[in-house]
Amino acid sequence: MSTSLPASCSCAVMTGFNQPLETRSFPLPRELKPGELIIKVELAGVCGTDVHLHKGELKIPLPLILGHETTGRVAAMGASDTKDWLGRPLAIGDRVSFTVGRTCKTCRYCRVYRLPSRCLNRKAYGVSTPCGEAPHLLGGYGQYHFLYADTAVFRLPDDLPSEAVVGAGCSLVTAVHGFEKLQMQWAESVLIQGSGPVGLASLAIAKEAGARPLIVIGGPRDRLERCQRFGADLTIDIDEVRDPAVRRKMVLDATGGLGADVVVECVGHPQAVVEGWELARDGGKYLVLGHYGDAGPAMLNPHLITRKELTVLGAWGSEPQHWTIALEFLRTRRSDYPFHELITHRFSIGQVNEALQAVASWQTGKAVIVPNG
Amino acid sequence: MSTSLPASCSCAVMTGFNQPLETRSFPLPRELKPGELIIKVELAGVCGTDVHLHKGELKIPLPLILGHETTGRVAAMGASDTKDWLGRPLAIGDRVSFTVGRTCKTCRYCRVYRLPSRCLNRKAYGVSTPCGEAPHLLGGYGQYHFLYADTAVFRLPDDLPSEAVVGAGCSLVTAVHGFEKLQMQWAESVLIQGSGPVGLASLAIAKEAGARPLIVIGGPRDRLERCQRFGADLTIDIDEVRDPAVRRKMVLDATGGLGADVVVECVGHPQAVVEGWELARDGGKYLVLGHYGDAGPAMLNPHLITRKELTVLGAWGSEPQHWTIALEFLRTRRSDYPFHELITHRFSIGQVNEALQAVASWQTGKAVIVPNG
Amino acid sequence: MSTSLPASCSCAVMTGFNQPLETRSFPLPRELKPGELIIKVELAGVCGTDVHLHKGELKIPLPLILGHETTGRVAAMGASDTKDWLGRPLAIGDRVSFTVGRTCKTCRYCRVYRLPSRCLNRKAYGVSTPCGEAPHLLGGYGQYHFLYADTAVFRLPDDLPSEAVVGAGCSLVTAVHGFEKLQMQWAESVLIQGSGPVGLASLAIAKEAGARPLIVIGGPRDRLERCQRFGADLTIDIDEVRDPAVRRKMVLDATGGLGADVVVECVGHPQAVVEGWELARDGGKYLVLGHYGDAGPAMLNPHLITRKELTVLGAWGSEPQHWTIALEFLRTRRSDYPFHELITHRFSIGQVNEALQAVASWQTGKAVIVPNG
Amino acid sequence: MSTSLPASCSCAVMTGFNQPLETRSFPLPRELKPGELIIKVELAGVCGTDVHLHKGELKIPLPLILGHETTGRVAAMGASDTKDWLGRPLAIGDRVSFTVGRTCKTCRYCRVYRLPSRCLNRKAYGVSTPCGEAPHLLGGYGQYHFLYADTAVFRLPDDLPSEAVVGAGCSLVTAVHGFEKLQMQWAESVLIQGSGPVGLASLAIAKEAGARPLIVIGGPRDRLERCQRFGADLTIDIDEVRDPAVRRKMVLDATGGLGADVVVECVGHPQAVVEGWELARDGGKYLVLGHYGDAGPAMLNPHLITRKELTVLGAWGSEPQHWTIALEFLRTRRSDYPFHELITHRFSIGQVNEALQAVASWQTGKAVIVPNG
Repeated sequence: MSTSLPASCSCAVMTGFNQPLETRSFPLPRELKPGELIIKVELAGVCGTDVHLHKGELKIPLPLILGHETTGRVAAMGASDTKDWLGRPLAIGDRVSFTVGRTCKTCRYCRVYRLPSRCLNRKAYGVSTPCGEAPHLLGGYGQYHFLYADTAVFRLPDDLPSEAVVGAGCSLVTAVHGFEKLQMQWAESVLIQGSGPVGLASLAIAKEAGARPLIVIGGPRDRLERCQRFGADLTIDIDEVRDPAVRRKMVLDATGGLGADVVVECVGHPQAVVEGWELARDGGKYLVLGHYGDAGPAMLNPHLITRKELTVLGAWGSEPQHWTIALEFLRTRRSDYPFHELITHRFSIGQVNEALQAVASWQTGKAVIVPNG
Repeated sequence: MSTSLPASCSCAVMTGFNQPLETRSFPLPRELKPGELIIKVELAGVCGTDVHLHKGELKIPLPLILGHETTGRVAAMGASDTKDWLGRPLAIGDRVSFTVGRTCKTCRYCRVYRLPSRCLNRKAYGVSTPCGEAPHLLGGYGQYHFLYADTAVFRLPDDLPSEAVVGAGCSLVTAVHGFEKLQMQWAESVLIQGSGPVGLASLAIAKEAGARPLIVIGGPRDRLERCQRFGADLTIDIDEVRDPAVRRKMVLDATGGLGADVVVECVGHPQAVVEGWELARDGGKYLVLGHYGDAGPAMLNPHLITRKELTVLGAWGSEPQHWTIALEFLRTRRSDYPFHELITHRFSIGQVNEALQAVASWQTGKAVIVPNG
Repeated sequence: MSTSLPASCSCAVMTGFNQPLETRSFPLPRELKPGELIIKVELAGVCGTDVHLHKGELKIPLPLILGHETTGRVAAMGASDTKDWLGRPLAIGDRVSFTVGRTCKTCRYCRVYRLPSRCLNRKAYGVSTPCGEAPHLLGGYGQYHFLYADTAVFRLPDDLPSEAVVGAGCSLVTAVHGFEKLQMQWAESVLIQGSGPVGLASLAIAKEAGARPLIVIGGPRDRLERCQRFGADLTIDIDEVRDPAVRRKMVLDATGGLGADVVVECVGHPQAVVEGWELARDGGKYLVLGHYGDAGPAMLNPHLITRKELTVLGAWGSEPQHWTIALEFLRTRRSDYPFHELITHRFSIGQVNEALQAVASWQTGKAVIVPNG
Repeated sequence: MSTSLPASCSCAVMTGFNQPLETRSFPLPRELKPGELIIKVELAGVCGTDVHLHKGELKIPLPLILGHETTGRVAAMGASDTKDWLGRPLAIGDRVSFTVGRTCKTCRYCRVYRLPSRCLNRKAYGVSTPCGEAPHLLGGYGQYHFLYADTAVFRLPDDLPSEAVVGAGCSLVTAVHGFEKLQMQWAESVLIQGSGPVGLASLAIAKEAGARPLIVIGGPRDRLERCQRFGADLTIDIDEVRDPAVRRKMVLDATGGLGADVVVECVGHPQAVVEGWELARDGGKYLVLGHYGDAGPAMLNPHLITRKELTVLGAWGSEPQHWTIALEFLRTRRSDYPFHELITHRFSIGQVNEALQAVASWQTGKAVIVPNG
């Protein structure tokens, strides 16, 4: 059940934090169990999180093949009747993507609380799956990728380019999850704090969901221009409007004087939350979406929660059904939300350190590794 | 439409912060418009908030007659066909209580957002209604109380003692409001932080709503014993268990190892929120109910909101419909929740400074002023 | 506080069911109390409900001036400092519209249940306000319209044409209310049953809120073409596809085989509900929006509610805050949802019987009376 | 991994509808895969549904061992490290119960819609699992019961008697599921239609959740007395109060004149829904819980849904997490809700036809089969 596979393949391996990644060769698995797949990697997104992981900002096991935003083609199957997460048959050569998180389906979060995003035994490809032992190929920065049978794989339809999937990256599914928590309603005023990937994805969803007006605070200018192209009614450039009081006045002026119905934090600095609680109207909702990483605490006043009767919500990562929504959204709506245009830089495996550097210094739109390019 | 009223009456007046209240005489209004009432005060609760107001911790206008937890009897009516908030006819001699907050019914919070607790023009008897000008009698610490026509007045049924109403005080309606936001479900585990009046009222509601288990962290011991009498399954004495890590372990042990489904903050110190966010399970709800006053910020980490997928909620004061729930609850369920037994100290108007002192030093259960005693 | 008003004006009066309306002259009120207004009518929509009222299908008092979808200009004010419902000052000559329902603000639905659309004492201009006694001018089919001080009046901004307001009519605010109940989420599949005014308004909101796909079952063809212009992804012509089983198959095919996430009934025949319950997926939501009138029962099977775990919702009329949403929507989004283009027929007061006839026979888009034209 | 098991055992088998069940002997499985269990049956509840199945009212495969409310002890395990659904290790001799429904975890309802109660491939022990082929032992009416590895098994704590579990039966978990949908709040007025097992379970939960008042319409008298013992504030005997208008007046009188906030249908006759929609207040909630079986349609008026702004909800069967709630409820609260006292009749396997007859003729409280008695 496979195309003719090479015996081994090249991958970029992180062996130490803040050390250059090394190109190493790993053997491909010889035998696959039912449901297991080998994917020939097409595009592997370089996420900002990869930069943080490379700096050692999360406790993760080494050596590790980074890469958790990946598309590729099925190169080998453990069983011929394997299906994707939506029940569609898979075949050699099919173009696919997949969720990086695998959950245990037995812990209290998976079972009792129906909150698998908080599975006590979650494993994420490219993050918490070291490559020291077989099957080795557990991250996107490599020519081939191994997938366990419990991975949520999605066959990509022909009219959905891989560039859209990787261009949107893990930000879009994160935002889909966040908005599921928000239960935003059409005609609500929405403020997005942050114009990076999560901010842009949140903006796209808010626009699609009928936000009015739709405001972004962020920067730099080219990112805000992209936000306008995606439908922002008002952008506030944090480099130009440096005084929070002035920014607040701009938001109040745009929302009838009392603040936004909904504020979505997509910045990742706790100080943004301090500013954001002031920008929601009394009775409003505040989604903390940008704090996947632990950027530490800030001086926050609980009195505001009581007095303003705020609802503050969080969402962590994503679940497979958020992928079904995201992929269909990208397929049908990419003329209005051209995530596929975000990819500006392509790197080979040998250039992976340059890729991380380019992302770290904000020189890129979306950067991707093309391991078989 | 009145009993024979005196021309004037005595009230305790706050003329300066941290100054002794003075007993002054004010004339009773001679004419009442339709809907206006004069109440002969029976019991006026001394709320902890009164102590804070006396210390000048909120910007309020002086001179002021304190007292916002009041029962009394209708002594004069502006029109004979006046009804209470639930449409029941009022008559001279009827025993009543009333909400202290009056809302404008025209601002965006009253109208568009249906959030009258955040009315932009809210006025509260005993808090923001100075007594320098007629009709003067705008707080509970006096022999008579004037009520504007837009006050939500409630006729008290014969089988509901005034002691229950004032014993529960504004804490109970605040908690009713908070639990409306919470949408707590039966069989959820609930942790109450704080065993003061708001904590005890929250505990009563959580018990009534089927919390299991129902845990309280607080003190001192006599308050925790009262919590047990009201139905707490586990009480954690903050004076005995001084290490937050030990308290956390006790909460986890009582909730299956992952934290409480619901945590209700009734402490009023921001540090309690820091501790509390650690005590809710992932996906849990956290109600900030004890921060009516602004006790300042604390170092709070937004990453917890994202990672734990918390929902943090606030509720401010109360609305009249929360009174309908609270009064019916007190009427029908006071054998299980004996709020009427909480009153431990009674003071005359001349003793009002002793009353404030007693409450400030936590010597009392509930203290009340009996102005016509 | 008035322009020079005539002493009397002409109105079309319904004196008996199924009888021709008569043109009568009524005196204008000479004195207005604070908050009261006289409006010079610009456009008065002829709603399908007017046809039903004319046929006597609801118990209403006669004689009556029909018309509950009205715009006009302020011609006289009881006080110079009158404001509209959103607090904006009104002046002679201002163009306005207003909600037809006036609520008592004192019954249990207004107060305790916060459900003013079900006010026990609701009065609706043009429906339940007979014209036999002063102030007479209580419906839209007349040259002038009297407004009580408790009416929710909205000043129309210059960039919002009256044609859009009357073109959308009471259908849009009804749909705004319905979708508030629905809490539809972006990316949900939505089926609209019915392509009349309520169906079209529901479709516009569902589109704006990110429905995907968005399906309509209705007719005749020109209405379905309008639905396509407003954004329907699929229209099913009930005249062409007469077999419910075929219609069901078309809906299933368009929704992944299991039915729509959300179905909105905008037909008004109970048999549509029978069909509709089969078209929602298990766990889906069903909004009964088209049954403002009582069209009688149908054979409905409660087993479907249990087995399919449906949520069936209703919404009745509208509240003022639904108007704030609707008017802003019309102002900002009418390039995509051209409700102003729906007006196809204009009639004078003398032609009002022809107008009713034209609407009854479905010859029109939206018909309007132009009483001062 | 087993106690010494017999080679075969006796079961009561349904070979034809409306035919007497036959006692047959089946071989016990010789080998078990990991996760599979053999249970020695202790108590098997005779559910009213069994009577309906016996009459052929649902399309089910034959031959069949009935019984879907079962407790027993682990007699053999496929692997020594098998755990129950909550992760607790299982051992030979452990007393357990289990959910009868097994879901595929791969269909759209299991995956995308998170609605496993509507799994497209659901199999239920004792209902849709014929016994013609190995492993045969797939229903409760037998000495031993085979459990597949994907069964949600619950180890019963020592302080939870099996009588409580089987006394509550599948009614309690169904009601837990229904109330999860309802999101009933404390202090809401609740009307239960029906005083059978589902009605009694719903009543217990409503009481525990703080319903006030709590009303039941049902019969016969002994069942209503049981309802009173479980906490009903008012019972209306349908045999005594035969006029629906009088029943309606009684409900209105008990709920302030406008109807109940929440109505829970537990009757199973569609006519009850017709009556019930009239008994909810405007804006109220109506849960259709008693229509697991298809009892056909009734003349229901959708106009009521619109005009009364009702929310009508359904819930089907249960999911494993509802069991966790139900079992803990029975363990901790059975002094107030003595479900264990409901068992009135015990039958051997040989008496199973008498058992069905007794249940069909309403002669029993709860009847159980004791196959190894």
